[in-house]
Amino acid sequence: MALSGIRIIDLTRILAGPFCSMLLADMGADVIKVEAPGKGDPVRGQGAMKDGFSWYYAQFNRNKKSITLDLYADDGRAVLADLLRGADVLIENYRPGVLDRMGFDADRLRQLNPDLIVTSVNGYGSTGPYVDRPSFDFIAQAMSGFMSVNGTVEDGPLRSGPPMSDLVAGLYAAFGTACALAARGRAGGQRVEASLTNGLISMLAYLSAEYFITGTPPVRTGNNHPIVAPYGLFHAADGDVAVAPSNDAFVRRFLEVLDLGHLLDDPDFASNDARMANRERINVLVNEKIGRQTVDHWIEVINKAGVPCGRVMGLDEVFDDPQVLAQDMVLDVPHPGHGDVRMTGFPVKLSGTPCRLRLPAPALGAHTDQVLRDLGYGDDRIDALRRQGTI
Amino acid sequence: MALSGIRIIDLTRILAGPFCSMLLADMGADVIKVEAPGKGDPVRGQGAMKDGFSWYYAQFNRNKKSITLDLYADDGRAVLADLLRGADVLIENYRPGVLDRMGFDADRLRQLNPDLIVTSVNGYGSTGPYVDRPSFDFIAQAMSGFMSVNGTVEDGPLRSGPPMSDLVAGLYAAFGTACALAARGRAGGQRVEASLTNGLISMLAYLSAEYFITGTPPVRTGNNHPIVAPYGLFHAADGDVAVAPSNDAFVRRFLEVLDLGHLLDDPDFASNDARMANRERINVLVNEKIGRQTVDHWIEVINKAGVPCGRVMGLDEVFDDPQVLAQDMVLDVPHPGHGDVRMTGFPVKLSGTPCRLRLPAPALGAHTDQVLRDLGYGDDRIDALRRQGTI
Repeated sequence: MALSGIRIIDLTRILAGPFCSMLLADMGADVIKVEAPGKGDPVRGQGAMKDGFSWYYAQFNRNKKSITLDLYADDGRAVLADLLRGADVLIENYRPGVLDRMGFDADRLRQLNPDLIVTSVNGYGSTGPYVDRPSFDFIAQAMSGFMSVNGTVEDGPLRSGPPMSDLVAGLYAAFGTACALAARGRAGGQRVEASLTNGLISMLAYLSAEYFITGTPPVRTGNNHPIVAPYGLFHAADGDVAVAPSNDAFVRRFLEVLDLGHLLDDPDFASNDARMANRERINVLVNEKIGRQTVDHWIEVINKAGVPCGRVMGLDEVFDDPQVLAQDMVLDVPHPGHGDVRMTGFPVKLSGTPCRLRLPAPALGAHTDQVLRDLGYGDDRIDALRRQGTI
Repeated sequence: MALSGIRIIDLTRILAGPFCSMLLADMGADVIKVEAPGKGDPVRGQGAMKDGFSWYYAQFNRNKKSITLDLYADDGRAVLADLLRGADVLIENYRPGVLDRMGFDADRLRQLNPDLIVTSVNGYGSTGPYVDRPSFDFIAQAMSGFMSVNGTVEDGPLRSGPPMSDLVAGLYAAFGTACALAARGRAGGQRVEASLTNGLISMLAYLSAEYFITGTPPVRTGNNHPIVAPYGLFHAADGDVAVAPSNDAFVRRFLEVLDLGHLLDDPDFASNDARMANRERINVLVNEKIGRQTVDHWIEVINKAGVPCGRVMGLDEVFDDPQVLAQDMVLDVPHPGHGDVRMTGFPVKLSGTPCRLRLPAPALGAHTDQVLRDLGYGDDRIDALRRQGTI
């Protein structure tokens, strides 16, 4: 696998950090998730549960090992130091400064392992006036400007449905870690950082470019494309169909499929500017045609004309969709004691070193003994650590 | 830099592919963007323009070189073959099969360069029933289920403001490429693929886990957290404040800051289940307190209590925010002939091999001669290619 032989010590919890380490584990890295004895990652008890088992945890912690370790105890921190000596990467999502106060500041880490890559995922980055603030996906969506451009004018700023700032930050952190690994022969160890707010800011795309030129914040446009018409959701006889004719050539093909090609001879609709000015009128004309047939019909004929088009799917439809299944985007993973757990598949496909499921999400501390023995700890020492509650 | 010495031939246009190659260029890769003579990437003429120059193009094509090459001409394809012989990575975002029909199928690519990593970004992946369909961000948002969980129950499915499926697919492709580079000593060349639909499907997080357990598609919850109350946007005297108390301990601290701690003694609000059942009532009580002070006041005191909290910012506020500026998330990049172009900064921070701005986005074909000379082409040959319109 692409990251075979890379050993990662993972101190993260909840979502952004565990997503980062999951992406690296899916690529073959040996990820050792360090969890608090008796409790573990709070996500073990969150989200949709079946028979006391969180499928949300199972999804985001596949391919990892779990050890318990009390990092508030000196003995626990000594074990962490031993783990770091033999590791390639440390991933953490504490607030900036917490790892330092735990006794693992930059100097100590360099002394333990000069080649260690230290990856941090946090709310605001590790410098600047807000560095000590707690963060959370919803707050990063608000403070990155994402909410200000998501939603409709009428309803006000809106968060995204999924926790995008967590996921984007986790993915950026995984990308940065992979780049640092690729550079390690030349660069040695270094610090990699991604934050919830910076990640979403970098995804404002043409909206930030528009603001930088005009000085005017973009308005929310709901499902209407800000600069192209007709475009968006149209109402077929049995549901909605999304159509995205992103330039004049596509608009012509789309209108011709609807027998509305003649509209392009009308000065009110001849240019994109004219169609934007008369968007409501052209949408009425388009909907009148679209309403006469089913979603399936339109998906067939509009795609055949080369115009991007698709069904607006609920998750029930997504996970029954033949394309989604053909792409292996649904996995059923046997979890001992919990039966098959369904989860989403691997979004990055590598032909030579493909991602695969090697381990189900671990029971809390399932690999503690094995990992400590690999460090050279004897049974007596492991028993002592267990008796005193350190592991 | 992390990817110094990595040479990338970039056939992509519009957004998902150019975002992937920008991320790799920001990390130090030598990216040669191949564009059609006389036209180039359509984004050169799209989005917010200033004096005929697209700042959207400038943002997503920084740190790249541009050469013109007619890939419909035999001579142009011969130049591409020469480029690929000396390259580490090829990135393309054609529909599956187009590169093959151009004469660069898997066998030919392997023959030209067995160590070449071939990265594809496309709509649906390269296998399955929809493989020949055109795609587009809006369609992937509809078909991934993202729209079904974004927005409010009342308003129906809603796309995200920014083009998230393009950006997530580009970021996944960059991550996969970096992993393939890290593996190359062992694995040699291989194919890396990310798609708009698969990328967003992988970001449904707890929403997909919930569906897999319950069999019921999640409902859109607007700004309300699906499983925690109180949570969301509250109305201060001069604007909205986002507050995310994600568990009981945070809810207690939040209510105590508001002098509403006594509510937790009331059976109607004592547990999260009770508060979810009485969400509207508790929101009224919270808003009554929040409305008495300014956003600034609440951000100060709620964060100080350790509860994640922030201002809902428009882009004007985001790009004036002291934290955003401290994180260098705004760059002013001198573009010869176009003055300073403002763009967003680097979302991944590497301490040892940091991202930096080496090149402004290139004029169309600005590096054609230099790149061809580096291939060993003489002036006569370059002139001939130019006369016949191949470059």
